Amino acid sequence: MTAYEDLRAHLRQTAALGEVAGRLGWDQQTVMPRGANDQRAEEMAALEDVLHARRTDPELGDLLDRAEAPDAVGEAILREARRDFTRNTRVPARLASELARVTALSQTAWEEARAKDDVAAFLPWLEQVVALRREEGQAIAQGGDAYDALMQDYEPGTDAAQVGAIFDRMRPRLVALRDRILGAPTPPALQGHFPQDAQLRLAHDLARRFGYDFDRGRIDLAVHPFSSGSGSDVRITTRVAEGDPFNCLYSTLHEVGHATYEQNISPDYALTPLGHGVSMGVHESQSRIYENQLGRSRAFTGWLFGAMQAEFGALNIDNADAFHAAVNRVHQGYIRTESDEVQYNLHIMLRFDLERALIGGTLAPADLEEAWNTRFEADFGYGIDRPAHGVLQDVHWSVGLFGYFPTYALGNIYAACLDKAMRNALPDLDAHLAAGDLGPATDWLAKAVQQHGALRPSVATITQACDGTAPDETALLDGLDRKFAAIYAI
Amino acid sequence: MTAYEDLRAHLRQTAALGEVAGRLGWDQQTVMPRGANDQRAEEMAALEDVLHARRTDPELGDLLDRAEAPDAVGEAILREARRDFTRNTRVPARLASELARVTALSQTAWEEARAKDDVAAFLPWLEQVVALRREEGQAIAQGGDAYDALMQDYEPGTDAAQVGAIFDRMRPRLVALRDRILGAPTPPALQGHFPQDAQLRLAHDLARRFGYDFDRGRIDLAVHPFSSGSGSDVRITTRVAEGDPFNCLYSTLHEVGHATYEQNISPDYALTPLGHGVSMGVHESQSRIYENQLGRSRAFTGWLFGAMQAEFGALNIDNADAFHAAVNRVHQGYIRTESDEVQYNLHIMLRFDLERALIGGTLAPADLEEAWNTRFEADFGYGIDRPAHGVLQDVHWSVGLFGYFPTYALGNIYAACLDKAMRNALPDLDAHLAAGDLGPATDWLAKAVQQHGALRPSVATITQACDGTAPDETALLDGLDRKFAAIYAI
Repeated sequence: MTAYEDLRAHLRQTAALGEVAGRLGWDQQTVMPRGANDQRAEEMAALEDVLHARRTDPELGDLLDRAEAPDAVGEAILREARRDFTRNTRVPARLASELARVTALSQTAWEEARAKDDVAAFLPWLEQVVALRREEGQAIAQGGDAYDALMQDYEPGTDAAQVGAIFDRMRPRLVALRDRILGAPTPPALQGHFPQDAQLRLAHDLARRFGYDFDRGRIDLAVHPFSSGSGSDVRITTRVAEGDPFNCLYSTLHEVGHATYEQNISPDYALTPLGHGVSMGVHESQSRIYENQLGRSRAFTGWLFGAMQAEFGALNIDNADAFHAAVNRVHQGYIRTESDEVQYNLHIMLRFDLERALIGGTLAPADLEEAWNTRFEADFGYGIDRPAHGVLQDVHWSVGLFGYFPTYALGNIYAACLDKAMRNALPDLDAHLAAGDLGPATDWLAKAVQQHGALRPSVATITQACDGTAPDETALLDGLDRKFAAIYAI
Repeated sequence: MTAYEDLRAHLRQTAALGEVAGRLGWDQQTVMPRGANDQRAEEMAALEDVLHARRTDPELGDLLDRAEAPDAVGEAILREARRDFTRNTRVPARLASELARVTALSQTAWEEARAKDDVAAFLPWLEQVVALRREEGQAIAQGGDAYDALMQDYEPGTDAAQVGAIFDRMRPRLVALRDRILGAPTPPALQGHFPQDAQLRLAHDLARRFGYDFDRGRIDLAVHPFSSGSGSDVRITTRVAEGDPFNCLYSTLHEVGHATYEQNISPDYALTPLGHGVSMGVHESQSRIYENQLGRSRAFTGWLFGAMQAEFGALNIDNADAFHAAVNRVHQGYIRTESDEVQYNLHIMLRFDLERALIGGTLAPADLEEAWNTRFEADFGYGIDRPAHGVLQDVHWSVGLFGYFPTYALGNIYAACLDKAMRNALPDLDAHLAAGDLGPATDWLAKAVQQHGALRPSVATITQACDGTAPDETALLDGLDRKFAAIYAI
């Protein structure tokens, strides 16, 4: 065995154990008995210890030093593996284990606090998670910025300054568009009672149409929709509000975008460092293009209008144009995941600034609720009514995901670039969408983006899919202007 | 930290990882997408490698050599840990890993073969599993008998000669009782259509009455009912045949017996070598006493008769005595898990002899089907009609459980001894059972047996619970004679 072959075997076993950890996370959020929480935290910590030991194994370092890549795939594997090893060897085993233990407990504390609107109950957990992640970021950064270091876990190659500059450019156009829209007459919303069973039946149908392979996945209910796993076991969750079927249907499409990315990666990359999405931003580009550029297009909503009438009977909206307006209705609201395409990125900007301040130490966790509420009112023009609609709405911080939120906005940017390239390549795309046929679109995305996994870095992946054009925010902003000008006649 | 404290920490982390492996097994048999099978096998093998490395870690051996127990609990922990270490260090890592990989794949092959009655499709898997387990048994036995060595995994302290002698004593009385029963008029069977939802609702109610804690467990459907996990996450599965509600209800009670044993172990023993049932025989004594001595008693079936009428409406059986006879109906049949109390142990004896021969090398896997069919006809008086009713009916051999079957019969023996002691201690037990109140019985079992986990060896556990009387088969055989003499008027 060459050093490269030994390295591949080492990485493969670690990847398999990583899948096990992901499966435990899925279990915890879907089927685990509530009373198992403390024991599960200990199980996760034990597994995290094993993973950390493997990921920081001096023998792995030696193999990485000696390995020679036989081809371009091998070079990509070495690139990813070396970056991970450098990152991981900077984090003490004690800290990695403690993070796993605390975040497992913290997530349940967050769920309970959210249900009771009890910020104080969650505060001690948030303080611990922030302190641990800051310590981790500082250990990785080695004198650099802790938040920038944490961002590398989700979007290697970017930093807070870059993202901040993009957000500065985006904000005025988004705010201007939002204000023009809110100054126009509001289209009617979809209303009625939409039984859970029927919503889930339609969600399964949509998942199939968008290419989700149920032989290698499943859909369950959870508090917060997510996708987990890679290779041949990629599971998604959704949630149901019986008064708002778009919540279930579009979060399902969103997670299907994530999940099909994982399912469509070349089997050759399974259980290698290339066998998962290259970054959270590119991941989000897939979930967003499924959800927005495809799922909320006029062409596809025309088909969905008929499908919903077939499933739920007559709706309170009686034509496809009005239905399209209802799907894309720009509305006041508190919840990021229920936001419209125009205001969504404003939610991200709020979180980005607050979490930078938390990790940077300029905002104490005890002051977070007030900071959230003040900032929300400044950005959206109305106050938060309850913590579950404000600072407690997202799972992310409870499980230590600091530096993750900006990837949602990057994903929106990438998705708009990909949509432009896809529509150039598929001039009759809308005719297929209007017939509920997603095949051409999902095939194009599978070939252009998904199959490659982490073969190329994030921006290179998007650039290559877009015929050599590097991504920027103009496609997103131009697309939003066009789309909402048509819907709102502004 | 003393060597004993270091040892406890080492064992605790291994136990936590062992729980993870158990959870993966549960996942595979309940919710895993079918297409994930190959990847899951690799995940299980990776985790098995980790566990094997920890269980054979020279540092563990050193700690075991140096540790001094501070008390009786510590002594028991050392006893269990030293036995496990000796066993595990005799099995090469390569073999342990291969066993995990092959049995994960083999189980799915068995499921498919059983569905298609295709013995030939399963044969290559059986051959691999037998060869690997024989190799393992030989490695553990170090010149002794491989099958005896495998039995120690399930019932430490016994061997095939002891069990064979017990079976030789039991067989004539069981056959004589069976023949007298089958010579008497057969009571009517319960008939009708019993919808799955209602069966599962009643199964949940029964589980609660028998003390199963749903805050630390859950019930799902699976091909083969089982219980998995320990401590605060103990899950069970059941199955439903809409023509035969006793299948679901009594296999639920059976698994509840296993699960409450795990749930009721002292929390002080959680994630230690004492934190699970001491042996499969004692485990089976709990499942069997829940299912048979309690669940199939005249007193409890009187209550169940009313509960089933309430759930399913009028039955084809109109009085509680006849219902009790239907529950305990001795009937011809092929399936062990659907067998009655009289013939059940004959099924075990068949498997015991065949698996001894497989591991001993005197029976080739290719000849197993014929051997099964010949032996079945000799023991039961009629031929097997299809492999799914014969050699393919049980999951055990597909996952490498050789040496496990005899523990079912030992469990029946222990259960009868415990029932005798419990009825001495609780003279008004039947009045409670007749009211559907299992509290006194399950409390007695929790205190006498379950709370102790693996504190004392198997036979000592039963002996202590039975006021110093060592277990033998007479309580079981006498009990069966009494019970069936009453039902069949023989």
